Amino acid sequence: MNKSALYQLSYGVYVVSTWDKGRATGCTANSAMQITSNPATIAVSINHDNYTNQCIQDTGKFAISILGENTDPGVIGTFGFYSGKDTDKFDKVKPVIKEYMPVVEDACAYIVCEVIDKMETSSHTVFLGKVLDADVLKQDTPMTYAYYHKVIKGTSPKNAPTYQGD
Amino acid sequence: MNKSALYQLSYGVYVVSTWDKGRATGCTANSAMQITSNPATIAVSINHDNYTNQCIQDTGKFAISILGENTDPGVIGTFGFYSGKDTDKFDKVKPVIKEYMPVVEDACAYIVCEVIDKMETSSHTVFLGKVLDADVLKQDTPMTYAYYHKVIKGTSPKNAPTYQGD
Repeated sequence: MNKSALYQLSYGVYVVSTWDKGRATGCTANSAMQITSNPATIAVSINHDNYTNQCIQDTGKFAISILGENTDPGVIGTFGFYSGKDTDKFDKVKPVIKEYMPVVEDACAYIVCEVIDKMETSSHTVFLGKVLDADVLKQDTPMTYAYYHKVIKGTSPKNAPTYQGD
Repeated sequence: MNKSALYQLSYGVYVVSTWDKGRATGCTANSAMQITSNPATIAVSINHDNYTNQCIQDTGKFAISILGENTDPGVIGTFGFYSGKDTDKFDKVKPVIKEYMPVVEDACAYIVCEVIDKMETSSHTVFLGKVLDADVLKQDTPMTYAYYHKVIKGTSPKNAPTYQGD
């Protein structure tokens, strides 16, 4: 098997956020996709080791901030390379509240979802969320993972499915 | 809700293929993402109305052909706008057999998976596949859905989650 073929799947760059007992938290994610059109549902994949996973299980809701090419790349590092357990990520990155959920203000769009199903795997939970609200925040080109690699020259956090370290 | 925010999620353009009692078949899909790294697993979302859905349920295996910017755009139309029930799509698009599964020869990479779990939604099945084989077929830039819209100026088939007709 040539694992480099897997890296040819296309992704965006997102922050998946939720509440941790009244405190906003979240993590960087690449794996989000729309599943159904009407009602609109979205699946996101979050590593068991991401603190955000447990917080989504507790609140039953999550928000997706779609990062754009002009979003401050520091957002990716803040949400991707620290744990929300001991870091107040939204102290460093300005949030905006949409449909009662914390969203990255500097994103180009957001989607707020209520968890309606989930699928467990060995390392990740795939949450299926029904879309409660969504809107564009600013005109920008959504950042692809390929752009992040080629232009921003970023790497994958260890909890990402696309992590290439092993 | 502003549904146009949902169209800012990033996708690739794929053909998801399998066997229909010894006959190769498949459909165009955008919703594929890696879920776990080790073992590598991939989730794909296929509409219940796609004939390919039932064929994957029957065979328990599927292949993903990752289309590139230089893949003949006719492949997308053949696999996206006809039903595999009454069309021999692989008569029009040359297949190559990889790990006993039919793959689009003109794709830039392929991934062959065995179904290990699934999640049902109102209109789509999310299949979780364990990767059995994967390889690059030719050097090309993977086609994004944004590229398909902007450069090839294509539309979504009615069974796609990203269908904008309703």
